[in-house]
Amino acid sequence: MNKLYVVGIGPGAPEDMTLRAKNALEDAQVIAGYGVYVDLVRPMFPEKEYLTTAMRRESERCRLAIDAACGGKTVAMISSGDAGVYGMAGLIYELAQGRDLEIELVPGVTAALSGGAVLGAPLTHDFAVISLSDLLTPWEKIEKRLEMAAAADFCIALYNPSSIRRADHLRRACEILLRHASPETVCGAVRNIGREGERMELMTLEEMKNYSADMFTTVFVGNSQTRVIDGRMVTPRGYRDV
Amino acid sequence: MNKLYVVGIGPGAPEDMTLRAKNALEDAQVIAGYGVYVDLVRPMFPEKEYLTTAMRRESERCRLAIDAACGGKTVAMISSGDAGVYGMAGLIYELAQGRDLEIELVPGVTAALSGGAVLGAPLTHDFAVISLSDLLTPWEKIEKRLEMAAAADFCIALYNPSSIRRADHLRRACEILLRHASPETVCGAVRNIGREGERMELMTLEEMKNYSADMFTTVFVGNSQTRVIDGRMVTPRGYRDV
Repeated sequence: MNKLYVVGIGPGAPEDMTLRAKNALEDAQVIAGYGVYVDLVRPMFPEKEYLTTAMRRESERCRLAIDAACGGKTVAMISSGDAGVYGMAGLIYELAQGRDLEIELVPGVTAALSGGAVLGAPLTHDFAVISLSDLLTPWEKIEKRLEMAAAADFCIALYNPSSIRRADHLRRACEILLRHASPETVCGAVRNIGREGERMELMTLEEMKNYSADMFTTVFVGNSQTRVIDGRMVTPRGYRDV
Repeated sequence: MNKLYVVGIGPGAPEDMTLRAKNALEDAQVIAGYGVYVDLVRPMFPEKEYLTTAMRRESERCRLAIDAACGGKTVAMISSGDAGVYGMAGLIYELAQGRDLEIELVPGVTAALSGGAVLGAPLTHDFAVISLSDLLTPWEKIEKRLEMAAAADFCIALYNPSSIRRADHLRRACEILLRHASPETVCGAVRNIGREGERMELMTLEEMKNYSADMFTTVFVGNSQTRVIDGRMVTPRGYRDV
């Protein structure tokens, strides 16, 4: 049976990968993915065949991987974080429909979790994950999700908070959240999670309006209970011995 | 410096742990946690000292771990999944406040990701994670979060969908979601993720009202775009080559 692994490699460092992910990459003859992520695993597996395409050529990249697997090679398609969270997993299923292929998904640590661990424990209670990229989603839908998430007092992880084309998205998001959340809400941002230059910052929601995020930043918004404890962002679950 | 690791071990199988988690457990002299999770790692590290307490004695368990670490032993406190998602990370920060202790969080693959990978790709777009346990959260708050999540067309992962004490919570949750979501919304459930007896089922939101979940089940509710492709639950991101 032709075999295609779809692998989430985590934030980047080899040790943030699961053992299952490492085994899948070892088993694969071909590793496919976006250049930046392929470069993260290439030093671990220099002898593999690699398939890469440019940023945003996701469909092309998935088709190359599916074709290589259907041609008889064991292929691992990699995403950073988890392949099921804004990753390639969905697209692989769409494009592989009806092909003679066994698809195995290998989950990984997405930025909400890896970035959360850098900040402390921002997502200990119910949370929402929202991407601020409107490349593939109408901005009105993103606004609605921000508004509802704040109204329901969710903790929030914001992916893709900014890019050159949409430098003001984070500010606009903060303004929507402020309709329901206090300006003093504890927020955090993590850059280059698990990679060289990792950096975390804490701020209030009001301050975040003017925060300069880039495309390697993940942003966290606390709920009404989130506090700063010893320099960390902590959302209490409210555990007690009941 | 006294050292306390707070480690998410993933769904259960040793290979679903990250290499960083494995290294932390190797480095620790003492491993603390709830009995069921401790039993998952004990075969890998039979020579360690173990500290366990009964279910729900979370504060006591954290205090034991903090005291052991402050007494000079390297301690790893483990949670299943990710320690930052309904796990011990927040409580450790609260109880360790002001103690002479270096805390290192090691993220892991939470059930939204590991269960998602079993079902296909249910969370490829914006999603919310909600626990249906009202032990530590008023049910009204849970209802509000369900209602807002459905109104905003989030994909949803439901943790703790049921227990003996609250057998009807999943039905009540479905009824709230149905105020905004179609009865035909694609849903899925995964039991015993990554462990013996793993089993996944697909159903509609209407059918899920009568689904018998147990405390080892994680439930997934699609958004309005989620489809079934080749027997898998797939939420399209809407990728195209732009």
